[in-house]
Amino acid sequence: MHVIVDLCLVPIGVGTSVSSYVAACHGVLEKAGLTHTLHAYGTNIEGPWDDVMAAIKACHEEVHRLGAPRIHTNIKLGTRTDRKQRMADKVESVRNKGTSKPS
Amino acid sequence: MHVIVDLCLVPIGVGTSVSSYVAACHGVLEKAGLTHTLHAYGTNIEGPWDDVMAAIKACHEEVHRLGAPRIHTNIKLGTRTDRKQRMADKVESVRNKGTSKPS
Amino acid sequence: MHVIVDLCLVPIGVGTSVSSYVAACHGVLEKAGLTHTLHAYGTNIEGPWDDVMAAIKACHEEVHRLGAPRIHTNIKLGTRTDRKQRMADKVESVRNKGTSKPS
Amino acid sequence: MHVIVDLCLVPIGVGTSVSSYVAACHGVLEKAGLTHTLHAYGTNIEGPWDDVMAAIKACHEEVHRLGAPRIHTNIKLGTRTDRKQRMADKVESVRNKGTSKPS
Repeated sequence: MHVIVDLCLVPIGVGTSVSSYVAACHGVLEKAGLTHTLHAYGTNIEGPWDDVMAAIKACHEEVHRLGAPRIHTNIKLGTRTDRKQRMADKVESVRNKGTSKPS
Repeated sequence: MHVIVDLCLVPIGVGTSVSSYVAACHGVLEKAGLTHTLHAYGTNIEGPWDDVMAAIKACHEEVHRLGAPRIHTNIKLGTRTDRKQRMADKVESVRNKGTSKPS
Repeated sequence: MHVIVDLCLVPIGVGTSVSSYVAACHGVLEKAGLTHTLHAYGTNIEGPWDDVMAAIKACHEEVHRLGAPRIHTNIKLGTRTDRKQRMADKVESVRNKGTSKPS
Repeated sequence: MHVIVDLCLVPIGVGTSVSSYVAACHGVLEKAGLTHTLHAYGTNIEGPWDDVMAAIKACHEEVHRLGAPRIHTNIKLGTRTDRKQRMADKVESVRNKGTSKPS
């Protein structure tokens, strides 16, 4: 089961600057060999369900290890059986519908 | 690693009535033996990380099996290392702060 | 436009205990006269779009005023034009599909 | 109050292809003059709270008008009083922490 995920992990109890923890998560995803893209409010990841979920767990473990006593995470997650779809396809599909010239 | 989750699974491509799919997920959670509570916009679940994640995967598999070609899921997920906290504690903690008589 | 919302507001930069801020939000919702229900991972609210959104803004203002320098909020939000649905209907609808005896 | 938002609007009851509705929302955001960036699992938007929220409401109205009887939307939303931060800053901040060479 292929999954496309939007991951947003918020460390709590470590002050207001959370970017170093997000960077650590990117290291985890990199190491896991998963396709991932950083955006302004999270990270998109795609791959086999078990691999993606194992990486998310590893992110939590790493962020706790780096000192965050509490983590709040949001995940958006899509699966489909009707056809294969990659992250790039989703963006392309909207662009082809003409975002610049909506009806 | 104990996790508290808010799960909201939205089947896409099966019309506007989604309650039978949500009910099927509750069967999956029940079978998994996990503590879970239905609310008006999702289901709260708690337990060991791997068990909860395995159950969420089983929900996706079951909802696809029941005919939904596409699923969009939201997960809120909390872990903490500073102390044990159960779902009931979270509600209790807010109530003790006096929701009825806020300053 | 009637809306059903799941609101989860996370104050950042005020330590790991966030329940007093959540309690303050409940005061805001109470004062706004909106139907709302606390659950283990958020608060469900329903009402006219503008009233609910004004209350969410007032929650942000109040939590900043109480000292949180940063807030991360998750909102799930549902609208429908096919029929009226209340929060209680959603729970009832799943229950009637037989969560205890899924196929 | 400046807000950074991740918006993910899911039309329900219109089949599995939702990209034309997402494209219509981009038209709404474009018309509102708000900074917005499409990614693989949503759209990031930033601006004054009231303007962003008015645009999200206009998206719901437009998607219903285009025929979707039901909409499920996820919003992640961040505000802060400690300093000004733009969407581009958030991505930059993580990159500067060295995502390519995590410890």
